[in-house]
Amino acid sequence: MGEPATTRRRTRGGGGAARRAERGNASVETAKYIERNIPLFEVLDAEALEAIEHHAETVLEEIGVNFVNNPGALERWRAAGASVDAERVRLPRGLARQLCATAPAKFTQVARNPERSVEIGGKNLVLAPVYGPPFVHDMEGGRRYAKLEDFRNFVKLGQMSRWLHHSGGTVCEPTDVPVNKRHLDMVHAHMTLSDKPFMGSVTDPSRAEDCVEMCGLLFGEQFVQDNTVMTSLININSPLTFDEVMVGALEVYAANNQACIVSPFIVGGAMAPVSVAGTLVQVLAEVMAGVAYSQLVRPGAPVIFGAFVTSIDMNSGAPTFGTPEAAQITYGAGQLARRLGLPFRSAGSFCGAKLPDAQAAYETANTLNVGLLSGVNFMLHSCGWLEGGLVASYEKFVMDADQLGALHRMAAGVRVDEDSLAMDAIREVGPGGHYLGCAHTQKHFKTAFWRSEVFDYKPYETWIEEGGAETPELAGRRVAKLLASYEAPPMDPGIAESLTDFVARKKAAVPDSFM
Amino acid sequence: MGEPATTRRRTRGGGGAARRAERGNASVETAKYIERNIPLFEVLDAEALEAIEHHAETVLEEIGVNFVNNPGALERWRAAGASVDAERVRLPRGLARQLCATAPAKFTQVARNPERSVEIGGKNLVLAPVYGPPFVHDMEGGRRYAKLEDFRNFVKLGQMSRWLHHSGGTVCEPTDVPVNKRHLDMVHAHMTLSDKPFMGSVTDPSRAEDCVEMCGLLFGEQFVQDNTVMTSLININSPLTFDEVMVGALEVYAANNQACIVSPFIVGGAMAPVSVAGTLVQVLAEVMAGVAYSQLVRPGAPVIFGAFVTSIDMNSGAPTFGTPEAAQITYGAGQLARRLGLPFRSAGSFCGAKLPDAQAAYETANTLNVGLLSGVNFMLHSCGWLEGGLVASYEKFVMDADQLGALHRMAAGVRVDEDSLAMDAIREVGPGGHYLGCAHTQKHFKTAFWRSEVFDYKPYETWIEEGGAETPELAGRRVAKLLASYEAPPMDPGIAESLTDFVARKKAAVPDSFM
Repeated sequence: MGEPATTRRRTRGGGGAARRAERGNASVETAKYIERNIPLFEVLDAEALEAIEHHAETVLEEIGVNFVNNPGALERWRAAGASVDAERVRLPRGLARQLCATAPAKFTQVARNPERSVEIGGKNLVLAPVYGPPFVHDMEGGRRYAKLEDFRNFVKLGQMSRWLHHSGGTVCEPTDVPVNKRHLDMVHAHMTLSDKPFMGSVTDPSRAEDCVEMCGLLFGEQFVQDNTVMTSLININSPLTFDEVMVGALEVYAANNQACIVSPFIVGGAMAPVSVAGTLVQVLAEVMAGVAYSQLVRPGAPVIFGAFVTSIDMNSGAPTFGTPEAAQITYGAGQLARRLGLPFRSAGSFCGAKLPDAQAAYETANTLNVGLLSGVNFMLHSCGWLEGGLVASYEKFVMDADQLGALHRMAAGVRVDEDSLAMDAIREVGPGGHYLGCAHTQKHFKTAFWRSEVFDYKPYETWIEEGGAETPELAGRRVAKLLASYEAPPMDPGIAESLTDFVARKKAAVPDSFM
Repeated sequence: MGEPATTRRRTRGGGGAARRAERGNASVETAKYIERNIPLFEVLDAEALEAIEHHAETVLEEIGVNFVNNPGALERWRAAGASVDAERVRLPRGLARQLCATAPAKFTQVARNPERSVEIGGKNLVLAPVYGPPFVHDMEGGRRYAKLEDFRNFVKLGQMSRWLHHSGGTVCEPTDVPVNKRHLDMVHAHMTLSDKPFMGSVTDPSRAEDCVEMCGLLFGEQFVQDNTVMTSLININSPLTFDEVMVGALEVYAANNQACIVSPFIVGGAMAPVSVAGTLVQVLAEVMAGVAYSQLVRPGAPVIFGAFVTSIDMNSGAPTFGTPEAAQITYGAGQLARRLGLPFRSAGSFCGAKLPDAQAAYETANTLNVGLLSGVNFMLHSCGWLEGGLVASYEKFVMDADQLGALHRMAAGVRVDEDSLAMDAIREVGPGGHYLGCAHTQKHFKTAFWRSEVFDYKPYETWIEEGGAETPELAGRRVAKLLASYEAPPMDPGIAESLTDFVARKKAAVPDSFM
């Protein structure tokens, strides 16, 4: 796979990381992506899975999917043996699954700092932040339209987070930048403010091309052709519709060997049936069609089985999060993805709450735990999501990210060996004794238990004396502290300049558009 | 098993329930206890389980357990073949497990309303409220010592909760009642204000006797001997110590065929080793000794494998909740309980937070989900716990109880049949359509998705217009509404009088004591 250009050149620049370490820099070490050492939770039995798979094939065969405004796609399908009627594509039973077989079960997304490259698939879980909100919220400033400065702040918080392995994509919409130029500033921010892997733009095929070009500047053009350096989010317009914008971006990425998440976007009862089983039938049909199409573009292109699924409140029509039905769909989709041999994307810090309060935390914790146990390999939105995804919350970003630390520990499984069985400690302490001072405790206490870096563990009286802060206030202090101590990861000045030039040149070439 | 006296007599009183139903009473239907239709999550493999079981036997054989100030217990142990040295009891390898074999894998706890009787064990999960806090908290009145009025309020809230199957025990400490008379008022409140099953007193063997007598008045004396009508909490004084107060209460209950939870009370690193595996070794040894002892008192007495386990913050010494280590111990303990053939008690609405805020909800949601998937059969503290168990929170009681509804739905599993696979709906809607109006949705939308009765699902603008309430405020409104619409379940006036008389007579017989 070789070494990305940025690293090779950086070593010539010499020892920036070492110098920073020497002067006691506050930068936070990032944990390696999660390699699960625990079983998965599987809610469906073989008979149920087979029924869902059978019906998904029926959907593809009888009902089919629409590829909208995309003659090239229809041509590819026709050549592959599908029946094409206007924009409707019907797939003979078995064709989609057969085409999916060339997609890799696991792939590496290379980061410009190779220590932060991630392997997506298998037993791994890679965590990325919230994606897409047009608003941001903090307890002091309230809810407001997101700006580029917010975007940059969230990328910095992601870079500083020990438990995020991935810088994400549209961490919020920089609404103060013209729509047709946002992708340039966003990708530039990920490339320069973070050294973790990131996502590309999907809002227009030409913007996807820009992202590939920028990666060429960052990693080297040939390196990009030989390696996956972006994972991007292709939403399916559920039910059963693939629009030309998203599919156009997928075509660009797949052709360039870059990864895509092919993801139904489903609020159950609106974009899919109200039943868990029916939703799974549709999800599977949609993903198989999308993944199969990616393999028509380029066999072997890396792709992820995505499932953004939630339920609806039939009183208000609002999407609801952290619900048992969403959990069941996620568990089931994970099983279907594994049977298809594809990496799985689902779950996140989902909540419908308007504030980072108890509602937000119940809904989020329910979903994060499902994410871990359902076998998710790539968890977008793993921190910072608020109000049904309309809002990126500063405080919730660090509150959720803190919980991701607990997922790491849970995923590590239980060590059972002579030392952990602790017979010497039990003997030393004996009936009625106390373990705090015993040798085994002294040896292990620093690392024995996961500890929140946000929550308050002080006694009531101390907590009251210190002002009786609620969680968001504590989180807000952590946000301020992290942003104050942020330092950009080192980058070769030549690369930095070429990226800045590219963005300036591209921006100058077309007039601003907010459409 | 027959019918409890209270029911037989009540029918003579005639039709109270029916009359209330006619006039549109606000009383809430209680769901049946959960019968899991989903798999369990098992974190330990067979080798790990065998290692833990082997070492637990070694603990009992080599180190032993202390039965403090209890010559009768030592005599029982000696007769059973244990080695007794002062208060230390050492059990030959295999003895404890052999004695545990007479304990039932499942038992019924009868409620005075037989529709609310619960079966504890097997695939079932019975939910009971918080137990033990000396303080209560609500957002308006803040934190204060609990009084009998609070106790009665929490029993009423439990009776009104759709998702609580059990009225619990010391839902909070009525600190305005003398210590030596509290149990009378507490059990009287459970008996009269609720018709769900409840717990007896364990703070003195004589108080356990009082509870058995009161049950005789409520159910009939012979009925109590033939049926289990109380489940009570016997904490082990970990490590490895059984004090005479708790064991004395266990002796009373077991002799009278009443159920006990035999439960190590462990903050890892203080009362057990800092490691998950070491804690499980000690938990298993302690439970096996306690359960074996219950079977020496009365073979076949119903008993539950309890495990109250959490980790410690090594910075402050505070217990921490909702942590991955606590989850791992709970999952492991569930596996050990099933291998021992005993019902399992663990988990709850645990949190260290001082307010029903995001910290509380993350910690609680983490633990409730573990409770469901670890195979807990009896979940004490399933709602209302705050601040490490020092506080019963009014708002959190209804917030947590609401989440218990989600556990019911999750536990029901996924229905996969022709109707739920929803092919007609997918055909009817087709690519690009909308499911809200289709026949399948219209048929199912009222019951398709779980819906919180506390959370806010309104759009941001409406929510702001209505005051922008956080979750505890919404929960506080629900508390007020429930208490205002509470109505006592009907009771035969003769029984009611006999219970009131008993309490008055017992109270008059001894001077008040706050020790």
